[in-house]
Amino acid sequence: MELTLFVPENPRLARQLRFLLEADQLKGVVRRNYTTLGRRENSAEHSWYAALLAFFLAEYGPQPLDLQKVLAMLLIHDLVEIEAGDTFIYDGEGQRLRRLREEEAARRLFPLLPEDQEGGLWELWREFEEGDTSEALFARAMDRLAPILLNFSNRGGPWKEAGVTRREVGERAKVLERAAPALARYVEELLREAERRGYLKPLEEGEGRG
Amino acid sequence: MELTLFVPENPRLARQLRFLLEADQLKGVVRRNYTTLGRRENSAEHSWYAALLAFFLAEYGPQPLDLQKVLAMLLIHDLVEIEAGDTFIYDGEGQRLRRLREEEAARRLFPLLPEDQEGGLWELWREFEEGDTSEALFARAMDRLAPILLNFSNRGGPWKEAGVTRREVGERAKVLERAAPALARYVEELLREAERRGYLKPLEEGEGRG
Repeated sequence: MELTLFVPENPRLARQLRFLLEADQLKGVVRRNYTTLGRRENSAEHSWYAALLAFFLAEYGPQPLDLQKVLAMLLIHDLVEIEAGDTFIYDGEGQRLRRLREEEAARRLFPLLPEDQEGGLWELWREFEEGDTSEALFARAMDRLAPILLNFSNRGGPWKEAGVTRREVGERAKVLERAAPALARYVEELLREAERRGYLKPLEEGEGRG
Repeated sequence: MELTLFVPENPRLARQLRFLLEADQLKGVVRRNYTTLGRRENSAEHSWYAALLAFFLAEYGPQPLDLQKVLAMLLIHDLVEIEAGDTFIYDGEGQRLRRLREEEAARRLFPLLPEDQEGGLWELWREFEEGDTSEALFARAMDRLAPILLNFSNRGGPWKEAGVTRREVGERAKVLERAAPALARYVEELLREAERRGYLKPLEEGEGRG
């Protein structure tokens, strides 16, 4: 789709605004999880929500924590989905292809920016994806925590639809253990309760319900 | 609506998560402007988008600028709409009542948080509303710039629907002059072009098209 931009004379600003107008399309990338309003969430809303969680839960993260970087990471972490689409986190095959498709998407999207900002965006996104720094760890933890809260609130939502097991969610949520131990303990209890209520399948076949 | 929260043992975390689950409902507050996808935007998406603009356009703002504070302000600036609803910016009577309704909404929503965070949120939100600091000025500028870009991209969108004049948009965009002069000049040109294309009514009655 051709997006109508009123192009400024300043070529640097023109590139920035072109990029930002493309970025708007993240509002059209639909995720599997629901909001508390009972409809599916899009990736722009999710990015806002994960950043909001980071802001109010920062005290549980690694210290010291560069919160500005965490917020920036969460604002940009899903931009590549504009081209690549959202990949359901419990779709194993999809996850294997995800990294490739997202790299390709980034190579189309990021160069819309002026070069210095393009470089900064690559760095920030790669840091998030690699998840090695305190900031990336905590940002990834918030990215995971957000849909867990919402899925519980929706009585299982996509977990029930896709027959996800407690073990699967628990493994994806492992990043919380290093990033925010107190939140990891909470999530563990939440998942136990979700299984008890039938929102999640038992821990594994032959186990769990007892 | 009662939102289902799995309540943690830690009472501080319980308050934080209760607040964050309520905050999720910002995704259901619908604004007048459209996204580039041609459907109306909600206030959660808008908050993400304004923060994204701030991150990539910070160089045009006052210097020095505490970008972390700007991002945080934009993440929280519309939370009161969960209770108060969005007020169309060109609805004069609505704007007069807005401040009152939003204060009331904040008094219901913010105290869900632990006291120290509640205090911080009041400060941050008031600073944004008052618009006196560099950070508040720039955040307000991004809050205004975002729908202007989107309305132009939508060939007028709500401007056309409501018969908004170029003068009205120009006056609301005045904050850009102090916050980011280069962006103010761009917006002025954009509004001139929007009028020329018929997205906005002429500057004022009897003027403009001539």
